[in-house]
Amino acid sequence: MKKISNAFYAQSGGVTAVINASAAGVIETARKHKNKIAKVFAGRNGIIGALTEDLIDTSKESVSAIAALKHTPAGAFGSCRYKLKSLEQNRAEYERLIAVFRAHNIDYFFYNGGGDSADTCLKVSQISKTLGFPIQAIHIPKTVDNDLPITDCCPGFGSVAKYIAVSMREASFDVASMAKTSTKVFILEVMGRHAGWIAAAGGLASTEETPLPIVILFPEVVFNRKKFIQKVHNKVKRYGYCSIVVSEGLKGANGKFLSDQGLTDAFGHAQLGGVAPVIANIIKEDLGLKYHWGVADYLQRAARHIASKVDVDQAYALGESAVKLALQGHNAVMPTIERLSDSPYRWKVNSTPLSKVANVEKKMPKKFISSDGFGITPSCERYLQPLIKGEAYPPYKNGLPKYVVLKNKSVPKKLVNDFKI
Amino acid sequence: MKKISNAFYAQSGGVTAVINASAAGVIETARKHKNKIAKVFAGRNGIIGALTEDLIDTSKESVSAIAALKHTPAGAFGSCRYKLKSLEQNRAEYERLIAVFRAHNIDYFFYNGGGDSADTCLKVSQISKTLGFPIQAIHIPKTVDNDLPITDCCPGFGSVAKYIAVSMREASFDVASMAKTSTKVFILEVMGRHAGWIAAAGGLASTEETPLPIVILFPEVVFNRKKFIQKVHNKVKRYGYCSIVVSEGLKGANGKFLSDQGLTDAFGHAQLGGVAPVIANIIKEDLGLKYHWGVADYLQRAARHIASKVDVDQAYALGESAVKLALQGHNAVMPTIERLSDSPYRWKVNSTPLSKVANVEKKMPKKFISSDGFGITPSCERYLQPLIKGEAYPPYKNGLPKYVVLKNKSVPKKLVNDFKI
Repeated sequence: MKKISNAFYAQSGGVTAVINASAAGVIETARKHKNKIAKVFAGRNGIIGALTEDLIDTSKESVSAIAALKHTPAGAFGSCRYKLKSLEQNRAEYERLIAVFRAHNIDYFFYNGGGDSADTCLKVSQISKTLGFPIQAIHIPKTVDNDLPITDCCPGFGSVAKYIAVSMREASFDVASMAKTSTKVFILEVMGRHAGWIAAAGGLASTEETPLPIVILFPEVVFNRKKFIQKVHNKVKRYGYCSIVVSEGLKGANGKFLSDQGLTDAFGHAQLGGVAPVIANIIKEDLGLKYHWGVADYLQRAARHIASKVDVDQAYALGESAVKLALQGHNAVMPTIERLSDSPYRWKVNSTPLSKVANVEKKMPKKFISSDGFGITPSCERYLQPLIKGEAYPPYKNGLPKYVVLKNKSVPKKLVNDFKI
Repeated sequence: MKKISNAFYAQSGGVTAVINASAAGVIETARKHKNKIAKVFAGRNGIIGALTEDLIDTSKESVSAIAALKHTPAGAFGSCRYKLKSLEQNRAEYERLIAVFRAHNIDYFFYNGGGDSADTCLKVSQISKTLGFPIQAIHIPKTVDNDLPITDCCPGFGSVAKYIAVSMREASFDVASMAKTSTKVFILEVMGRHAGWIAAAGGLASTEETPLPIVILFPEVVFNRKKFIQKVHNKVKRYGYCSIVVSEGLKGANGKFLSDQGLTDAFGHAQLGGVAPVIANIIKEDLGLKYHWGVADYLQRAARHIASKVDVDQAYALGESAVKLALQGHNAVMPTIERLSDSPYRWKVNSTPLSKVANVEKKMPKKFISSDGFGITPSCERYLQPLIKGEAYPPYKNGLPKYVVLKNKSVPKKLVNDFKI
């Protein structure tokens, strides 16, 4: 029988409203198997924590603190944007990782992130074997971009989708009220530089019961000013107003981002704009309509207060499954969401080898974008709709959500050498 | 005894998450007094509906539809930005109003808006007497700007304040997670061109239990780049990151809005920017830190999904009180919120003559802004804190809030003349 050892868990890349729910799934499940996993050590600021031997002892956290992770957004242990180089480019990094894991008796590596971290996870599994300290590496999917393959969806995405759908519905009601004498067009800029999954969610705001005039500008569709203006004009003519959701990744025919317009301020300094004000300017110039614009930015991915219950449940389930897979002896795998049916929505957890995930990007299918390029199709709606289902409100105190801040006590260092990042 | 007559209700100016709760208060209370108020007619698109005899018969709406207004944001009957001119400038407008009211047997005028509409309301009361058709005019306060006098607060403000406080807490957790290797400064632009009430609410995100490094840029405090940069630098040094909430009304030493920077795009066209990207640019130039910025815009005032329960309750209570005041024979008054104690928070409805309200703007007290100009004081916290208390979630269907869209059936016209706006 395998000896008792420790586990390492780290959060990677842009954080989400539910990545901490995955952390809770990992830690709570590990605590149920103390005969196999003694402690879960978390990397402070992701993989950097492993490289610099800056480990957090999660066993010092109370049961209630770990449970509170389920309703706390962002990365409770800190995340980082740090991609390990290839083994050829920086073998020292991998050797250091294994040295730290060896020193702290870490046999399990749980890495919670997107495509890059799936690749890292696979490499750690392979290299640890080569270096004679084999580690079971399990990747836990997380990305608001929803761009991982195999899994039906990625934890983090459903909650952003819900935030955008709810916000577009609310803002549309607002514009509808004002349109007679004032604002007729509202523009919301959303995340998703490479794929339009998040922008597509804006289309959910409109339903048969509550039809709303929503125009979507996808990064997948080259911006055509004339067609766009015609579309907005038609919506305003019919409904009296129009709501636009625009992806930050919208590009023009020249292949450049529309947000990159070479703006300069009065002193000639380059100005960093979003794409929303660019679209607003076009509306003003071509239609002369009064507009308002917003940029959701971090608000959309941190909005735990309006998280999707399905998303929270799936994030937790994947963390839980990662530990179970490890205990069953699996290695270099990622637990996935498998959709069993759209309506009623049914799903289960499955898993896939990391070799099928690493460096593969899931694009939004062409059939999800309407033929005019400005909306979502019924099949897209069928895919997206279940992912925003259910509310999972955090507890409140004095009108504010009670989000937990962990103690994050350090594990005493065992190695004599520092490691420069 | 007074004969049975009808009431007129209209929504004015920028809408809020709870103005429809006031409408519900008016309509439900009127329905309880059918021996005095036969029907409530609503103005389609505010006062324009009265001028053009475009009235909505709210008696055609079901009990459940009117109840649903309590959880539906924006203006269910349409609002407008339309200020009646003075009697000297446009007597015809007032005469037309009275003609419409006379034709539809309207003795009660309920006007739901901010400072301008309080003034209109007072004039309607005065002029109707002069024109021999005396109308009881009651103003129901509504404004996210919180700038009406006498009343302790204005319905609509508490919910925006809650949205900003919650969003700043969530975004701050996000930045804290990313700060090690990526974003260190987050900037959120909020409404409030003339007063910093909404910006101040960002300060509520930080509490003794959950301290967060928040810097506020108020419209009341002239922007001082050097002091601001020093403040942000200090916060980043201590916490590793900094969150900034900036009022759209922030001004420089030259008295001009910072958002009005004379931006031009690559073609020399004027560019309409917000203040958030301007602050972002300053952070980049002076500190070289990675930043993210958001603009809440309509999202903040339409966010019924995270409305303050206190705000919803007060909005309803003021609508209810408006009708009761009218039935008690009051005229040219506004129901107000009177604060009885901060903690526990206790309030009651009172009322004030409109002559004390019209054309008076409530500024944020100097003592609410900390001496360095970048934060709120304990007395400001004591004032703001109760206003964001309690959650009042709307019902959901398939992951989206169920907001009501009324039938808004027209009242048949009785006048032969049209009226040009």
